[in-house]
Amino acid sequence: MTDPEITKPAFVLVEPQLGENIGAAARIMGNFGLSDLRLVAPRDGWPNPAADTMSAGAFESAVRVRVFDTLETALADTHYVYATTARPRGMEKPVTGPRNASVDMASRCAIGEQVAILFGAERSGLPNEAVVLSDCILTYPINPAFSSLNLAQAVSVMAYEWGARSETALPDVFAGEGAPAASRDQLVGLFEHLEAELQTAGFYYPADKTPVMKQNLRNALLRARFTEPEVQTLRGVIKALAKGRGEAWRRRERKD
Amino acid sequence: MTDPEITKPAFVLVEPQLGENIGAAARIMGNFGLSDLRLVAPRDGWPNPAADTMSAGAFESAVRVRVFDTLETALADTHYVYATTARPRGMEKPVTGPRNASVDMASRCAIGEQVAILFGAERSGLPNEAVVLSDCILTYPINPAFSSLNLAQAVSVMAYEWGARSETALPDVFAGEGAPAASRDQLVGLFEHLEAELQTAGFYYPADKTPVMKQNLRNALLRARFTEPEVQTLRGVIKALAKGRGEAWRRRERKD
Repeated sequence: MTDPEITKPAFVLVEPQLGENIGAAARIMGNFGLSDLRLVAPRDGWPNPAADTMSAGAFESAVRVRVFDTLETALADTHYVYATTARPRGMEKPVTGPRNASVDMASRCAIGEQVAILFGAERSGLPNEAVVLSDCILTYPINPAFSSLNLAQAVSVMAYEWGARSETALPDVFAGEGAPAASRDQLVGLFEHLEAELQTAGFYYPADKTPVMKQNLRNALLRARFTEPEVQTLRGVIKALAKGRGEAWRRRERKD
Repeated sequence: MTDPEITKPAFVLVEPQLGENIGAAARIMGNFGLSDLRLVAPRDGWPNPAADTMSAGAFESAVRVRVFDTLETALADTHYVYATTARPRGMEKPVTGPRNASVDMASRCAIGEQVAILFGAERSGLPNEAVVLSDCILTYPINPAFSSLNLAQAVSVMAYEWGARSETALPDVFAGEGAPAASRDQLVGLFEHLEAELQTAGFYYPADKTPVMKQNLRNALLRARFTEPEVQTLRGVIKALAKGRGEAWRRRERKD
Protein backbone atom coordinates (compact mmCIF):
# COMPACT_ATOMS: atom_id res chain seq x y z
CA MET A 1 0.00 0.00 0.00
CA THR A 2 2.89 2.37 -0.71
CA ASP A 3 1.90 5.28 -2.90
CA PRO A 4 5.15 7.15 -3.52
CA GLU A 5 3.47 9.49 -5.99
CA ILE A 6 0.97 11.08 -3.60
CA THR A 7 1.35 13.31 -0.57
CA LYS A 8 0.84 11.44 2.69
CA PRO A 9 -0.41 12.72 6.02
CA ALA A 10 2.08 13.72 8.72
CA PHE A 11 1.41 12.39 12.22
CA VAL A 12 2.39 14.92 14.87
CA LEU A 13 2.87 13.86 18.49
CA VAL A 14 2.63 16.93 20.69
CA GLU A 15 4.83 16.68 23.80
CA PRO A 16 4.75 12.87 23.94
CA GLN A 17 5.93 11.44 27.26
CA LEU A 18 6.79 7.78 26.72
CA GLY A 19 9.36 6.58 24.20
CA GLU A 20 7.44 3.29 24.01
CA ASN A 21 4.45 5.09 22.54
CA ILE A 22 6.58 6.96 20.03
CA GLY A 23 8.13 3.68 18.89
CA ALA A 24 4.77 1.88 18.71
CA ALA A 25 3.33 4.81 16.75
CA ALA A 26 6.20 4.63 14.25
CA ARG A 27 5.76 0.88 13.87
CA ILE A 28 2.04 1.04 13.07
CA MET A 29 2.63 3.99 10.73
CA GLY A 30 5.17 1.92 8.82
CA ASN A 31 2.74 -1.00 8.76
CA PHE A 32 0.23 1.10 6.89
CA GLY A 33 2.64 2.86 4.55
CA LEU A 34 2.99 6.15 6.41
CA SER A 35 6.40 7.74 6.81
CA ASP A 36 6.16 11.30 8.17
CA LEU A 37 6.35 11.37 11.99
CA ARG A 38 6.89 14.70 13.75
CA LEU A 39 7.58 15.13 17.45
CA VAL A 40 6.96 18.43 19.20
CA ALA A 41 9.09 18.80 22.34
CA PRO A 42 9.23 15.12 23.35
CA ARG A 43 9.61 14.95 27.15
CA ASP A 44 12.63 12.67 27.15
CA GLY A 45 14.43 14.24 24.21
CA TRP A 46 15.51 12.48 21.05
CA PRO A 47 16.79 9.90 20.19
CA ASN A 48 15.04 7.72 22.73
CA PRO A 49 16.13 4.08 23.25
CA ALA A 50 12.66 2.97 24.44
CA ALA A 51 11.19 4.31 21.21
CA ASP A 52 13.78 2.44 19.21
CA THR A 53 12.99 -0.86 20.91
CA MET A 54 9.25 -0.57 20.36
CA SER A 55 9.61 0.57 16.75
CA ALA A 56 10.66 -2.89 15.48
CA GLY A 57 13.00 -1.16 13.04
CA ALA A 58 10.49 1.36 11.70
CA PHE A 59 12.94 4.26 11.94
CA GLU A 60 15.50 2.45 9.81
CA SER A 61 13.22 1.24 7.06
CA ALA A 62 9.89 3.00 6.90
CA VAL A 63 9.43 6.15 8.97
CA ARG A 64 11.31 9.44 8.99
CA VAL A 65 11.10 11.22 12.33
CA ARG A 66 11.69 14.95 12.84
CA VAL A 67 11.76 16.86 16.11
CA PHE A 68 10.47 20.42 16.55
CA ASP A 69 10.58 22.87 19.44
CA THR A 70 7.16 24.33 18.75
CA LEU A 71 3.93 23.19 17.17
CA GLU A 72 3.99 26.18 14.84
CA THR A 73 7.26 25.07 13.24
CA ALA A 74 6.09 21.46 13.06
CA LEU A 75 3.03 22.60 11.12
CA ALA A 76 4.75 25.21 8.97
CA ASP A 77 4.26 23.37 5.66
CA THR A 78 0.78 21.97 6.36
CA HIS A 79 -2.47 22.94 4.66
CA TYR A 80 -5.03 21.10 6.71
CA VAL A 81 -4.76 19.95 10.32
CA TYR A 82 -6.88 17.55 12.37
CA ALA A 83 -6.76 17.67 16.17
CA THR A 84 -7.59 14.34 17.83
CA THR A 85 -9.49 14.90 21.05
CA ALA A 86 -12.31 13.25 22.92
CA ARG A 87 -13.18 16.35 24.95
CA PRO A 88 -15.52 19.05 23.74
CA ARG A 89 -13.58 22.29 23.71
CA GLY A 90 -16.34 24.81 23.33
CA MET A 91 -14.79 25.85 20.03
CA GLU A 92 -16.50 26.32 16.72
CA LYS A 93 -14.72 23.68 14.67
CA PRO A 94 -16.06 21.01 12.39
CA VAL A 95 -16.03 17.61 14.12
CA THR A 96 -15.35 14.40 12.25
CA GLY A 97 -14.64 10.73 12.92
CA PRO A 98 -11.76 8.55 11.71
CA ARG A 99 -13.57 7.13 8.71
CA ASN A 100 -14.88 10.40 7.34
CA ALA A 101 -11.56 12.05 8.11
CA SER A 102 -9.67 9.41 6.14
CA VAL A 103 -11.82 10.00 3.07
CA ASP A 104 -11.37 13.76 3.40
CA MET A 105 -7.64 13.33 4.02
CA ALA A 106 -7.19 11.17 0.93
CA SER A 107 -8.82 13.73 -1.32
CA ARG A 108 -6.70 16.51 0.15
CA CYS A 109 -3.54 14.45 -0.33
CA ALA A 110 -4.56 13.69 -3.91
CA ILE A 111 -4.46 17.40 -4.76
CA GLY A 112 -1.08 17.82 -3.07
CA GLU A 113 -2.15 19.32 0.24
CA GLN A 114 0.02 18.48 3.24
CA VAL A 115 -2.30 17.12 5.89
CA ALA A 116 -1.34 16.65 9.53
CA ILE A 117 -3.00 14.84 12.42
CA LEU A 118 -2.17 16.02 15.94
CA PHE A 119 -2.05 13.64 18.91
CA GLY A 120 -1.71 14.97 22.44
CA ALA A 121 0.37 13.83 25.38
CA GLU A 122 -0.50 10.64 27.29
CA ARG A 123 -1.60 12.39 30.44
CA SER A 124 -3.33 15.48 29.25
CA GLY A 125 -4.16 15.24 25.55
CA LEU A 126 -3.82 18.22 23.24
CA PRO A 127 -3.57 21.71 24.74
CA ASN A 128 -6.26 24.14 23.64
CA GLU A 129 -3.72 26.17 21.65
CA ALA A 130 -3.08 23.14 19.44
CA VAL A 131 -6.78 22.63 18.84
CA VAL A 132 -7.12 26.32 17.94
CA LEU A 133 -4.42 25.91 15.27
CA SER A 134 -6.34 23.01 13.71
CA ASP A 135 -9.02 23.08 11.04
CA CYS A 136 -11.03 20.16 12.34
CA ILE A 137 -11.60 18.12 15.49
CA LEU A 138 -11.15 14.40 15.01
CA THR A 139 -12.89 12.29 17.60
CA TYR A 140 -13.29 8.53 17.92
CA PRO A 141 -16.52 6.60 18.38
CA ILE A 142 -15.49 5.64 21.88
CA ASN A 143 -17.28 3.94 24.77
CA PRO A 144 -18.13 6.85 27.09
CA ALA A 145 -17.86 4.52 30.10
CA PHE A 146 -14.23 3.63 29.29
CA SER A 147 -12.81 6.39 27.17
CA SER A 148 -9.12 6.74 28.05
CA LEU A 149 -7.30 5.85 24.85
CA ASN A 150 -3.62 4.88 24.74
CA LEU A 151 -1.57 7.25 22.55
CA ALA A 152 -0.12 4.51 20.33
CA GLN A 153 -3.59 2.98 19.90
CA ALA A 154 -5.00 6.37 18.91
CA VAL A 155 -2.28 6.57 16.26
CA SER A 156 -3.02 3.04 15.12
CA VAL A 157 -6.64 3.85 14.35
CA MET A 158 -5.73 6.63 11.94
CA ALA A 159 -2.76 4.73 10.46
CA TYR A 160 -5.10 1.83 9.79
CA GLU A 161 -7.68 4.16 8.28
CA TRP A 162 -5.05 5.43 5.87
CA GLY A 163 -4.09 1.88 4.93
CA ALA A 164 -7.72 0.79 4.68
CA ARG A 165 -8.28 3.00 1.65
CA SER A 166 -6.75 0.16 -0.33
CA GLU A 167 -8.70 -2.65 1.30
CA THR A 168 -10.68 -3.31 -1.86
CA ALA A 169 -7.43 -4.51 -3.45
CA LEU A 170 -7.04 -7.17 -0.77
CA PRO A 171 -8.44 -10.29 -2.40
CA ASP A 172 -5.39 -10.15 -4.70
CA VAL A 173 -3.07 -10.70 -1.76
CA PHE A 174 -3.57 -14.43 -1.75
CA ALA A 175 -4.48 -14.79 -5.42
CA GLY A 176 -2.79 -17.41 -7.54
CA GLU A 177 -2.05 -19.86 -4.77
CA GLY A 178 -5.45 -21.57 -4.74
CA ALA A 179 -6.27 -24.75 -6.64
CA PRO A 180 -8.90 -24.38 -9.39
CA ALA A 181 -12.52 -24.55 -8.30
CA ALA A 182 -14.19 -27.84 -9.13
CA SER A 183 -16.43 -27.77 -12.18
CA ARG A 184 -20.11 -28.49 -11.85
CA ASP A 185 -19.76 -31.95 -13.40
CA GLN A 186 -17.01 -32.85 -10.91
CA LEU A 187 -19.35 -31.76 -8.10
CA VAL A 188 -22.25 -33.73 -9.53
CA GLY A 189 -19.91 -36.73 -9.84
CA LEU A 190 -19.10 -36.34 -6.16
CA PHE A 191 -22.75 -35.99 -5.16
CA GLU A 192 -23.81 -39.03 -7.19
CA HIS A 193 -20.98 -41.12 -5.78
CA LEU A 194 -21.98 -40.13 -2.24
CA GLU A 195 -25.68 -40.66 -2.89
CA ALA A 196 -25.06 -44.12 -4.38
CA GLU A 197 -23.05 -45.18 -1.35
CA LEU A 198 -25.67 -43.76 1.01
CA GLN A 199 -28.36 -45.70 -0.89
CA THR A 200 -26.34 -48.89 -0.46
CA ALA A 201 -25.95 -48.11 3.25
CA GLY A 202 -29.67 -47.70 3.75
CA PHE A 203 -29.27 -44.02 4.68
CA TYR A 204 -32.42 -42.83 2.90
CA TYR A 205 -35.28 -43.61 5.19
CA PRO A 206 -38.19 -43.19 4.89
CA ALA A 207 -38.01 -43.61 1.11
CA ASP A 208 -40.34 -40.72 0.32
CA LYS A 209 -37.93 -38.33 2.04
CA THR A 210 -35.07 -39.33 -0.27
CA PRO A 211 -35.35 -36.36 -2.68
CA VAL A 212 -35.33 -33.74 0.08
CA MET A 213 -32.51 -35.49 1.95
CA LYS A 214 -30.41 -35.46 -1.24
CA GLN A 215 -31.27 -31.86 -1.89
CA ASN A 216 -30.25 -30.73 1.60
CA LEU A 217 -26.96 -32.57 1.44
CA ARG A 218 -26.13 -31.20 -2.02
CA ASN A 219 -26.90 -27.68 -0.85
CA ALA A 220 -24.71 -28.06 2.21
CA LEU A 221 -21.76 -29.44 0.25
CA LEU A 222 -22.08 -27.01 -2.61
CA ARG A 223 -21.66 -24.06 -0.27
CA ALA A 224 -18.14 -25.21 0.52
CA ARG A 225 -17.07 -24.38 -3.07
CA PHE A 226 -14.67 -27.32 -3.27
CA THR A 227 -11.59 -27.25 -5.45
CA GLU A 228 -10.67 -30.00 -7.93
CA PRO A 229 -8.18 -31.69 -5.59
CA GLU A 230 -10.67 -31.46 -2.73
CA VAL A 231 -13.27 -33.27 -4.83
CA GLN A 232 -10.70 -36.00 -5.55
CA THR A 233 -9.96 -36.24 -1.82
CA LEU A 234 -13.64 -36.48 -0.97
CA ARG A 235 -14.19 -39.20 -3.55
CA GLY A 236 -11.43 -41.09 -1.75
CA VAL A 237 -13.10 -40.39 1.61
CA ILE A 238 -16.42 -41.79 0.43
CA LYS A 239 -14.74 -44.85 -1.05
CA ALA A 240 -12.76 -45.46 2.17
CA LEU A 241 -15.80 -45.07 4.39
CA ALA A 242 -17.92 -47.35 2.23
CA LYS A 243 -15.19 -49.96 2.00
CA GLY A 244 -14.30 -49.58 5.69
CA ARG A 245 -17.86 -50.06 6.68
CA GLY A 246 -17.88 -53.17 4.53
CA GLU A 247 -14.70 -54.32 6.28
CA ALA A 248 -16.20 -53.66 9.70
CA TRP A 249 -19.31 -55.56 8.73
CA ARG A 250 -17.24 -58.41 7.46
CA ARG A 251 -15.26 -58.48 10.72
CA ARG A 252 -18.45 -58.39 12.75
CA GLU A 253 -19.96 -61.14 10.60
CA ARG A 254 -16.86 -63.26 11.11
CA LYS A 255 -17.19 -62.82 14.87
CA ASP A 256 -20.85 -63.88 14.81
CA MET B 1 -21.36 2.83 21.79
CA THR B 2 -22.46 0.13 24.22
CA ASP B 3 -25.05 -2.20 22.76
CA PRO B 4 -26.09 -4.42 25.65
CA GLU B 5 -28.89 -5.95 23.61
CA ILE B 6 -26.79 -7.49 20.85
CA THR B 7 -24.20 -10.24 20.79
CA LYS B 8 -20.65 -8.91 20.57
CA PRO B 9 -17.56 -10.52 19.07
CA ALA B 10 -15.13 -12.37 21.31
CA PHE B 11 -11.44 -11.57 20.84
CA VAL B 12 -9.28 -14.65 21.32
CA LEU B 13 -5.54 -14.32 21.92
CA VAL B 14 -3.90 -17.65 21.14
CA GLU B 15 -0.84 -18.32 23.31
CA PRO B 16 -0.03 -14.63 23.89
CA GLN B 17 3.47 -14.03 25.25
CA LEU B 18 3.55 -10.52 26.75
CA GLY B 19 1.23 -9.37 29.50
CA GLU B 20 1.65 -5.82 28.20
CA ASN B 21 -0.05 -6.79 24.97
CA ILE B 22 -2.90 -8.54 26.78
CA GLY B 23 -3.48 -5.42 28.87
CA ALA B 24 -3.29 -3.07 25.90
CA ALA B 25 -5.70 -5.32 23.98
CA ALA B 26 -8.18 -5.22 26.87
CA ARG B 27 -7.90 -1.44 27.10
CA ILE B 28 -8.65 -0.81 23.43
CA MET B 29 -11.47 -3.37 23.52
CA GLY B 30 -13.04 -1.48 26.41
CA ASN B 31 -12.56 1.79 24.53
CA PHE B 32 -14.72 0.51 21.71
CA GLY B 33 -17.38 -1.21 23.81
CA LEU B 34 -16.10 -4.78 23.55
CA SER B 35 -16.04 -6.98 26.63
CA ASP B 36 -15.32 -10.63 25.75
CA LEU B 37 -11.57 -11.39 25.88
CA ARG B 38 -10.42 -15.01 25.82
CA LEU B 39 -6.86 -16.18 26.37
CA VAL B 40 -5.70 -19.58 25.18
CA ALA B 41 -2.72 -20.85 27.17
CA PRO B 42 -1.08 -17.48 27.92
CA ARG B 43 2.69 -18.03 28.26
CA ASP B 44 3.04 -16.35 31.66
CA GLY B 45 -0.16 -17.68 33.19
CA TRP B 46 -2.99 -15.62 34.60
CA PRO B 47 -3.43 -13.19 36.32
CA ASN B 48 -0.51 -11.21 34.94
CA PRO B 49 0.63 -7.97 36.64
CA ALA B 50 2.03 -6.48 33.41
CA ALA B 51 -1.36 -6.97 31.75
CA ASP B 52 -3.04 -5.27 34.65
CA THR B 53 -0.77 -2.22 34.44
CA MET B 54 -1.32 -1.76 30.72
CA SER B 55 -5.07 -2.29 30.91
CA ALA B 56 -5.74 1.08 32.57
CA GLY B 57 -8.48 -0.57 34.60
CA ALA B 58 -10.21 -2.35 31.71
CA PHE B 59 -10.50 -5.63 33.61
CA GLU B 60 -12.33 -3.97 36.49
CA SER B 61 -14.80 -1.92 34.49
CA ALA B 62 -15.21 -3.00 30.89
CA VAL B 63 -13.70 -6.33 29.87
CA ARG B 64 -14.28 -9.84 31.15
CA VAL B 65 -11.29 -12.13 30.59
CA ARG B 66 -11.43 -15.92 30.52
CA VAL B 67 -8.54 -18.34 30.21
CA PHE B 68 -8.71 -21.66 28.33
CA ASP B 69 -6.29 -24.53 27.96
CA THR B 70 -7.16 -25.24 24.35
CA LEU B 71 -8.46 -23.33 21.37
CA GLU B 72 -11.27 -25.83 20.96
CA THR B 73 -12.71 -25.04 24.40
CA ALA B 74 -12.25 -21.30 23.86
CA LEU B 75 -14.30 -21.54 20.67
CA ALA B 76 -16.90 -24.00 21.95
CA ASP B 77 -19.85 -21.57 21.83
CA THR B 78 -18.84 -19.74 18.64
CA HIS B 79 -20.65 -19.84 15.30
CA TYR B 80 -18.25 -17.96 13.05
CA VAL B 81 -14.52 -17.52 13.47
CA TYR B 82 -12.05 -15.17 11.76
CA ALA B 83 -8.33 -15.96 11.82
CA THR B 84 -6.10 -12.89 11.55
CA THR B 85 -3.01 -13.66 9.55
CA ALA B 86 -0.83 -11.90 7.02
CA ARG B 87 0.65 -15.08 5.61
CA PRO B 88 -0.97 -17.10 2.84
CA ARG B 89 -1.56 -20.58 4.21
CA GLY B 90 -2.32 -22.50 1.06
CA MET B 91 -5.79 -23.20 2.45
CA GLU B 92 -9.09 -22.80 0.73
CA LYS B 93 -10.72 -20.18 2.95
CA PRO B 94 -12.47 -16.97 2.13
CA VAL B 95 -10.17 -13.97 2.70
CA THR B 96 -11.48 -10.65 3.98
CA GLY B 97 -10.18 -7.32 5.30
CA PRO B 98 -11.06 -5.50 8.55
CA ARG B 99 -13.73 -3.28 7.02
CA ASN B 100 -15.61 -5.99 5.19
CA ALA B 101 -15.21 -8.31 8.16
CA SER B 102 -16.72 -5.73 10.50
CA VAL B 103 -19.81 -5.42 8.33
CA ASP B 104 -20.13 -9.20 8.11
CA MET B 105 -19.52 -9.52 11.85
CA ALA B 106 -22.20 -6.98 12.71
CA SER B 107 -24.83 -8.78 10.70
CA ARG B 108 -23.91 -12.10 12.28
CA CYS B 109 -24.08 -10.55 15.76
CA ALA B 110 -27.44 -9.02 14.92
CA ILE B 111 -28.93 -12.49 14.41
CA GLY B 112 -27.39 -13.75 17.65
CA GLU B 113 -24.38 -15.61 16.29
CA GLN B 114 -21.32 -15.68 18.53
CA VAL B 115 -18.44 -14.42 16.43
CA ALA B 116 -14.77 -14.77 17.41
CA ILE B 117 -11.59 -13.22 16.06
CA LEU B 118 -8.35 -15.11 16.62
CA PHE B 119 -5.02 -13.33 17.12
CA GLY B 120 -1.77 -15.30 17.17
CA ALA B 121 1.29 -15.06 19.40
CA GLU B 122 3.72 -12.15 19.05
CA ARG B 123 6.56 -14.20 17.64
CA SER B 124 4.87 -16.70 15.41
CA GLY B 125 1.29 -15.68 14.68
CA LEU B 126 -1.51 -18.21 14.53
CA PRO B 127 -0.63 -21.88 14.16
CA ASN B 128 -2.07 -23.60 11.09
CA GLU B 129 -4.42 -25.67 13.28
CA ALA B 130 -6.11 -22.46 14.46
CA VAL B 131 -6.55 -21.23 10.91
CA VAL B 132 -8.05 -24.60 9.96
CA LEU B 133 -10.67 -24.20 12.72
CA SER B 134 -11.67 -20.79 11.35
CA ASP B 135 -14.25 -19.95 8.73
CA CYS B 136 -12.45 -17.00 7.23
CA ILE B 137 -8.99 -15.48 6.97
CA LEU B 138 -8.83 -11.86 8.06
CA THR B 139 -5.87 -9.96 6.68
CA TYR B 140 -4.92 -6.29 6.95
CA PRO B 141 -4.07 -3.93 4.09
CA ILE B 142 -0.48 -3.78 5.25
CA ASN B 143 2.69 -2.32 3.75
CA PRO B 144 4.49 -5.40 2.38
CA ALA B 145 7.86 -3.71 3.01
CA PHE B 146 7.15 -3.33 6.75
CA SER B 147 4.56 -5.88 7.67
CA SER B 148 5.28 -7.01 11.23
CA LEU B 149 2.27 -5.90 13.23
CA ASN B 150 2.26 -5.56 17.02
CA LEU B 151 -0.33 -7.84 18.66
CA ALA B 152 -2.07 -5.05 20.58
CA GLN B 153 -2.17 -2.90 17.44
CA ALA B 154 -3.70 -5.78 15.48
CA VAL B 155 -6.39 -5.99 18.15
CA SER B 156 -6.90 -2.22 18.05
CA VAL B 157 -7.73 -2.26 14.36
CA MET B 158 -10.60 -4.70 14.81
CA ALA B 159 -11.78 -3.12 18.09
CA TYR B 160 -11.90 0.20 16.29
CA GLU B 161 -13.75 -1.34 13.36
CA TRP B 162 -16.38 -2.61 15.78
CA GLY B 163 -16.72 0.84 17.33
CA ALA B 164 -16.72 2.54 13.94
CA ARG B 165 -20.06 1.00 13.07
CA SER B 166 -21.54 3.83 15.08
CA GLU B 167 -19.42 6.63 13.63
CA THR B 168 -22.38 8.15 11.83
CA ALA B 169 -23.80 9.01 15.27
CA LEU B 170 -20.71 11.06 16.10
CA PRO B 171 -21.77 14.62 15.31
CA ASP B 172 -24.09 14.30 18.32
CA VAL B 173 -21.13 13.95 20.65
CA PHE B 174 -20.51 17.64 20.77
CA ALA B 175 -24.05 18.75 20.04
CA GLY B 176 -25.68 21.41 22.14
CA GLU B 177 -22.54 23.22 23.20
CA GLY B 178 -22.20 25.33 20.06
CA ALA B 179 -23.55 28.84 19.67
CA PRO B 180 -26.25 29.28 17.03
CA ALA B 181 -25.06 29.80 13.48
CA ALA B 182 -25.34 33.38 12.28
CA SER B 183 -28.32 34.08 10.06
CA ARG B 184 -27.80 35.28 6.52
CA ASP B 185 -28.81 38.85 7.37
CA GLN B 186 -26.29 38.94 10.23
CA LEU B 187 -23.62 37.81 7.77
CA VAL B 188 -24.67 40.36 5.17
CA GLY B 189 -24.58 43.03 7.91
CA LEU B 190 -21.01 41.98 8.68
CA PHE B 191 -20.00 42.00 5.02
CA GLU B 192 -21.53 45.44 4.41
CA HIS B 193 -19.90 46.86 7.51
CA LEU B 194 -16.53 45.51 6.38
CA GLU B 195 -16.99 46.67 2.79
CA ALA B 196 -17.97 50.17 3.90
CA GLU B 197 -14.88 50.48 6.06
CA LEU B 198 -12.70 49.11 3.26
CA GLN B 199 -14.22 51.63 0.88
CA THR B 200 -13.36 54.42 3.33
CA ALA B 201 -9.83 53.05 3.63
CA GLY B 202 -9.30 53.09 -0.13
CA PHE B 203 -8.94 49.31 -0.25
CA TYR B 204 -10.79 48.84 -3.56
CA TYR B 205 -8.33 49.66 -6.28
CA PRO B 206 -8.64 49.73 -9.22
CA ALA B 207 -12.32 50.66 -8.99
CA ASP B 208 -13.48 48.29 -11.73
CA LYS B 209 -12.18 45.35 -9.66
CA THR B 210 -14.39 46.28 -6.70
CA PRO B 211 -17.20 43.80 -7.41
CA VAL B 212 -14.88 40.81 -7.78
CA MET B 213 -12.84 41.85 -4.72
CA LYS B 214 -16.04 42.00 -2.66
CA GLN B 215 -17.20 38.68 -4.03
CA ASN B 216 -13.93 36.91 -3.18
CA LEU B 217 -13.91 38.26 0.34
CA ARG B 218 -17.55 37.32 0.97
CA ASN B 219 -16.87 33.81 -0.31
CA ALA B 220 -13.86 33.43 1.93
CA LEU B 221 -15.66 34.66 5.04
CA LEU B 222 -18.83 32.74 4.37
CA ARG B 223 -16.96 29.44 4.36
CA ALA B 224 -16.10 29.95 8.03
CA ARG B 225 -19.78 29.51 8.95
CA PHE B 226 -19.62 32.07 11.75
CA THR B 227 -21.87 31.88 14.80
CA GLU B 228 -23.92 34.82 16.09
CA PRO B 229 -21.43 35.77 18.83
CA GLU B 230 -18.56 35.49 16.33
CA VAL B 231 -20.30 37.93 14.00
CA GLN B 232 -20.69 40.32 16.94
CA THR B 233 -16.98 39.90 17.71
CA LEU B 234 -16.02 40.53 14.11
CA ARG B 235 -18.14 43.65 13.95
CA GLY B 236 -16.14 44.86 16.96
CA VAL B 237 -12.90 43.90 15.21
CA ILE B 238 -13.78 45.92 12.14
CA LYS B 239 -14.84 48.90 14.24
CA ALA B 240 -11.62 48.75 16.29
CA LEU B 241 -9.40 48.49 13.23
CA ALA B 242 -11.15 51.33 11.46
CA LYS B 243 -11.10 53.53 14.55
CA GLY B 244 -7.53 52.50 15.40
CA ARG B 245 -6.39 53.41 11.95
CA GLY B 246 -8.09 56.76 12.46
CA GLU B 247 -6.29 57.16 15.80
CA ALA B 248 -2.95 56.34 14.18
CA TRP B 249 -3.65 58.82 11.43
CA ARG B 250 -4.58 61.45 13.94
CA ARG B 251 -1.43 60.82 15.93
CA ARG B 252 0.65 60.99 12.78
CA GLU B 253 -1.09 64.20 11.75
CA ARG B 254 -0.40 65.74 15.13
CA LYS B 255 3.27 64.88 14.77
CA ASP B 256 3.48 66.50 11.35
